[in-house]
Amino acid sequence: MTTWFNETLYSGFRQSHEIKKVLFEGKSKYQKVRVFETGRFGRMLALDGVVQCTEGDEFVYHEMLTHLPILAHGKVQSVLIVGGGDGGILEEVLKHKSVKRVTMVEIDGMVIDIAKKYLPKICGKAFADRRTNLIVGDGAAWVAETEERYDLVIVDRPDPVGPATVLFSKTFYDNCRRVMQPGAILVAQNGVPHMQGPELTDAIKLFQKIWAHSGTYLAVVPTYVCGFMSMTWASDADITDVDPRQIFARYDRAGLKGLRYYNPEIHFGAFALPDFVARLLPAPKAARKPAVKKKAAAKKR
Amino acid sequence: MTTWFNETLYSGFRQSHEIKKVLFEGKSKYQKVRVFETGRFGRMLALDGVVQCTEGDEFVYHEMLTHLPILAHGKVQSVLIVGGGDGGILEEVLKHKSVKRVTMVEIDGMVIDIAKKYLPKICGKAFADRRTNLIVGDGAAWVAETEERYDLVIVDRPDPVGPATVLFSKTFYDNCRRVMQPGAILVAQNGVPHMQGPELTDAIKLFQKIWAHSGTYLAVVPTYVCGFMSMTWASDADITDVDPRQIFARYDRAGLKGLRYYNPEIHFGAFALPDFVARLLPAPKAARKPAVKKKAAAKKR
Repeated sequence: MTTWFNETLYSGFRQSHEIKKVLFEGKSKYQKVRVFETGRFGRMLALDGVVQCTEGDEFVYHEMLTHLPILAHGKVQSVLIVGGGDGGILEEVLKHKSVKRVTMVEIDGMVIDIAKKYLPKICGKAFADRRTNLIVGDGAAWVAETEERYDLVIVDRPDPVGPATVLFSKTFYDNCRRVMQPGAILVAQNGVPHMQGPELTDAIKLFQKIWAHSGTYLAVVPTYVCGFMSMTWASDADITDVDPRQIFARYDRAGLKGLRYYNPEIHFGAFALPDFVARLLPAPKAARKPAVKKKAAAKKR
Repeated sequence: MTTWFNETLYSGFRQSHEIKKVLFEGKSKYQKVRVFETGRFGRMLALDGVVQCTEGDEFVYHEMLTHLPILAHGKVQSVLIVGGGDGGILEEVLKHKSVKRVTMVEIDGMVIDIAKKYLPKICGKAFADRRTNLIVGDGAAWVAETEERYDLVIVDRPDPVGPATVLFSKTFYDNCRRVMQPGAILVAQNGVPHMQGPELTDAIKLFQKIWAHSGTYLAVVPTYVCGFMSMTWASDADITDVDPRQIFARYDRAGLKGLRYYNPEIHFGAFALPDFVARLLPAPKAARKPAVKKKAAAKKR
């Protein structure tokens, strides 16, 4: 008889994966942590009954939250990852030779430990990279206190429940802006608009209070079921206002290995929004005064 | 206790929908036909245990298989729909005032009957439109025999099993080309590449034998689970080689009402393929001699 893992994220709809083997089952201070060998997607990490990543499709999420903002920026040297305990984001960021230092602040040490042990196909050797500054701690406290400054902040947040609720607050994003260099970019996971539309609306409303520019782009992660996943971005510069030839040139120069999703065509295609997603976005605010002068920012790119 | 409809399309993975009410359950000459009221996606049509469409997300599939090729062509007057018994494609096609006649050939009369009765939110009044020429019969036989000619052929085919197997054969597509006007476009549903990659490869290999140009574009239908759905196209003209300003102008002129997915940005964004999809495509064939001269085709657009 087949054993199934039934995701409990939504009422009235669920995805189920055949469990071939339970590799790990534990309870950390924060959540229930499980690793399965699934019938279709390889190994899967589930937290509190919700799919976090699988070997079969993690590449979508991790590539799109890293390569798109890094190539849109053009000169990323220092990166902050908030969350991301499975190491998938970290591994993709470190593919960029231009990146000199990555600080990753994950609240749940158990997730890092089990990623190293059970998910090497997702994290690779990222945790052992000399550029990695790994901190087991509270990302919200980190951005409130650190003296480090970043060109890119990646908020690998889950849904706005449990220990992650703080990663949806204005205080947190005010502090994120505090630790960002002029022209830096912030990106965040923002749920599946078909099911979680208000989360996208709320995120952009919040970002508009803090940054001159913000918006969303889309990717499709099979096991984040029910359509497009939205990734939101915020910056004092407009990351969509880059000459396509620049992105192609940066992509060629970066020489990224082993990609399965991101490419320069997808870079631009991801900003095309279906009507039902576009309607979730609040009207753009009147242009705010950017922290750096527009010309200086334009030159940087 | 919750009653669930468990889709049986894939081994090792399944989607499940809460059933609030069974509205119809029957067995036609071809397949098991069911209509449910679901907990999350409104009414759903299921054939042989596989989701065909739901009120909650049918707009994606039906808009993208119609408006994209119609606006890429620019002068569609006559349309053939093969399959499409639920009427969703028909309804979208008829939104175009330029369309003078639509022939729809659906093999299973039971699907049409239950669509009219239970799925008015999907088919609207499309079956009653004076431009509709509805035929309950075999689409493969129709394209082999009809004297009608079309500017657009939409193959609303399911997966290559059961009564639809013939809709994946070379004979069928040879006959489709036979009934196409010079410069006409064919589009077809082509499965979810993450799960059904070989189907996409096979389709393009087949199209390359018959047409000068072919390819795929992508859309995301929440209940066609596991990522992007591919839609394939074939034509003697390159439908991607259209000035974006043309598409915007045609879109404005068409004055389409009630769209929730398609817009000119998505028109172009849909052709951006993630690496793992692009790699499924066979190398383009050396240019074949088009049935109409290139200049004439270009002028037509």
